[in-house]
Amino acid sequence: MKRIGIALFLLSSFCCAQATGGFKPAFTNVWGAAYPRVDDSGKAEFRVKAPDAATVKLNFWSGPKLDMVKQNDGFWTVTTPPLVPGFHYYTIIIDGAEFSDPASHSFFGGGKDTSGIEIPEQGSTYYLPQPVPHGDVREIWYSSKVTGSWRHALIYTPPDYDTQTSKRYPVLYLQHGGGEDETGWIRQGHANFILDNLLASGSAKPMIVVMAYGYARRSGHPDPDLTGKPFGSPEMMKAMQEMAQAFEDDLTQELIPFVDNHFRTLADRDHRAMAGLSMGGMQTFQVTFDHLELFSYIGGFSGAAGPMVLGNEKLDPKTSFRGALADPDAFAKRVHLLWLGVGTDEPPMMKAGLERLHTSLDEAQIKHVFYESPGTSHEWQTWRRDLKDFATRLF
Amino acid sequence: MKRIGIALFLLSSFCCAQATGGFKPAFTNVWGAAYPRVDDSGKAEFRVKAPDAATVKLNFWSGPKLDMVKQNDGFWTVTTPPLVPGFHYYTIIIDGAEFSDPASHSFFGGGKDTSGIEIPEQGSTYYLPQPVPHGDVREIWYSSKVTGSWRHALIYTPPDYDTQTSKRYPVLYLQHGGGEDETGWIRQGHANFILDNLLASGSAKPMIVVMAYGYARRSGHPDPDLTGKPFGSPEMMKAMQEMAQAFEDDLTQELIPFVDNHFRTLADRDHRAMAGLSMGGMQTFQVTFDHLELFSYIGGFSGAAGPMVLGNEKLDPKTSFRGALADPDAFAKRVHLLWLGVGTDEPPMMKAGLERLHTSLDEAQIKHVFYESPGTSHEWQTWRRDLKDFATRLF
Repeated sequence: MKRIGIALFLLSSFCCAQATGGFKPAFTNVWGAAYPRVDDSGKAEFRVKAPDAATVKLNFWSGPKLDMVKQNDGFWTVTTPPLVPGFHYYTIIIDGAEFSDPASHSFFGGGKDTSGIEIPEQGSTYYLPQPVPHGDVREIWYSSKVTGSWRHALIYTPPDYDTQTSKRYPVLYLQHGGGEDETGWIRQGHANFILDNLLASGSAKPMIVVMAYGYARRSGHPDPDLTGKPFGSPEMMKAMQEMAQAFEDDLTQELIPFVDNHFRTLADRDHRAMAGLSMGGMQTFQVTFDHLELFSYIGGFSGAAGPMVLGNEKLDPKTSFRGALADPDAFAKRVHLLWLGVGTDEPPMMKAGLERLHTSLDEAQIKHVFYESPGTSHEWQTWRRDLKDFATRLF
Repeated sequence: MKRIGIALFLLSSFCCAQATGGFKPAFTNVWGAAYPRVDDSGKAEFRVKAPDAATVKLNFWSGPKLDMVKQNDGFWTVTTPPLVPGFHYYTIIIDGAEFSDPASHSFFGGGKDTSGIEIPEQGSTYYLPQPVPHGDVREIWYSSKVTGSWRHALIYTPPDYDTQTSKRYPVLYLQHGGGEDETGWIRQGHANFILDNLLASGSAKPMIVVMAYGYARRSGHPDPDLTGKPFGSPEMMKAMQEMAQAFEDDLTQELIPFVDNHFRTLADRDHRAMAGLSMGGMQTFQVTFDHLELFSYIGGFSGAAGPMVLGNEKLDPKTSFRGALADPDAFAKRVHLLWLGVGTDEPPMMKAGLERLHTSLDEAQIKHVFYESPGTSHEWQTWRRDLKDFATRLF
């Protein structure tokens, strides 16, 4: 009778979700959950029921890992130091097993549905729903010959899309990071609210934003057997390259034609942008430089050119990016925007790699934007700020 | 560097997600997860990593509760008996604490993000994506004066909506159950695929489907303090009634006008239906009988008239439903469809209650449809079948 006993559930919504001593339930809580709760300094209190557990830990992916303390009522609790504003993934580790917190909404990250908590950025509203016109976010399904499967994408249409029925719009393809999926830019990133707010203030042009699923297996190609192959082995690298190429082909041969057929797009390179975060940034650089006939705006958010940022490869203007940088003036005419971003608190390899790429591009006199998000790491607040800056420079 | 180490994540997608001994990874698994896996008889194998746990249980909400068995590698496993086809919520109980399984996608149910597993119904494709035209599912946000907040709804538009730009469509308002939210009919129910398939076979008329968030607190009304009030107390019942009334007012005063302003609807009672499952069925009966000037098609999926189904109230044709049934001929002219559904294996109170209502309506000569879903309980396969039948009778 669990599902019938709705009264108890409805009742639970009344009992707890109130502010207590400066702490308020987080925006990311499920309906009625009193914990986690957050104060104005960014401290967060967590509470998990685990009466028979021996150890319970709170595990932030880009933040503290804290032991929770058992209380007399079978609940375990802990209060964090002030956290960086923005969205943070976290899990609960109970007797060595990692799970999501039932009190928070889950968000797809790390290859699974993972708890998230939102720490408000005091005075910032650019990524929050405001009393302005709101665009729709559509879920679409398209049949891909490349993968031999139905694929799912999210598509933001600007507020006037349904009323300006003869107007056509430019398109931004916007990719999630590794372990995330096509829902990330809406659920974690609030891309729709960021665009709504930029449009309302006249800071960006109306555009369609397409968020694709960033993984692909080519139709008819069985999964490779990598049993016994070490990490980074040639077999593994080959499998990853095949996957990246399948994604590129699906995007350029299936999704872009689908979008141009089903939405009122401006279907040319001058009105098509691509950007992505982390893995999505690497995909963006691969796809756009392979297809400059399709794209003229390029954004790498804490990602960009993989081998030059994370590996040892050096920028060679004559040969890198298929020679597109050999003539800086020609490049500036052909590519309307090359944009790189990184958080100042990102892991050293990412930060140093992007700074090195930025410096090398400067030395090669390649026009580009380099943006640093103050005080944030490899996390969504960095990427929200990236999108806020990047989108104003488009089209 | 967790988020940067995408290679490991991508690699994981190759290693495991293959069929083994008749068992295949469930449709509801996250990308690359080998478990849970399901065979053609509906048996499911589960596997959870919990090296330091003392006890681990598998907990189906409408099915078996099974002890998992620790293996030498720190994983716990169990195989279920054959499960009823369809979607099932489940959780993992580890040392007394209830969590979701990281290997399965989560679905909002029971007031939190909860694991789900899909057991295929052999030979059934009506709720699965097929090579037919697909409608979009849109997320919209509307500002509600009733609740004083931004509210979120999902809206299905039929495949021809964007091309037939002068065509107007009837609207079905379709509500989730208690503890679920506005995403339930798409994620768990596959309402979009059910409609796509019915439209492709010519079995239903093109319609817009609106899925609202079924909870509401009235603006400016603080949460009632129910401390010390027993379950079912007058104070609790009052709080629940206020919440139900706030939902009714939000739906009729805010959401319906928003939808009629923003979509090409046929905005009259002859082209407006409402249905819902469980709590959503009770809401449907409250809202539609309060507002027969707005609705002419009514569906209760394992829910319907709360007091008459779950309580002791008897149908009195003269007074029940605000007297709408007093004249059966007038009712049949005014209400184009009154539809009740229940699963044959639902809990006795629900099944007996709906049968009693059905019999009473027959005795009162009130024209209605009574549908029984064979072999299913208070669960999504019942409600998918309900929608499949109900939708063909609309408009």
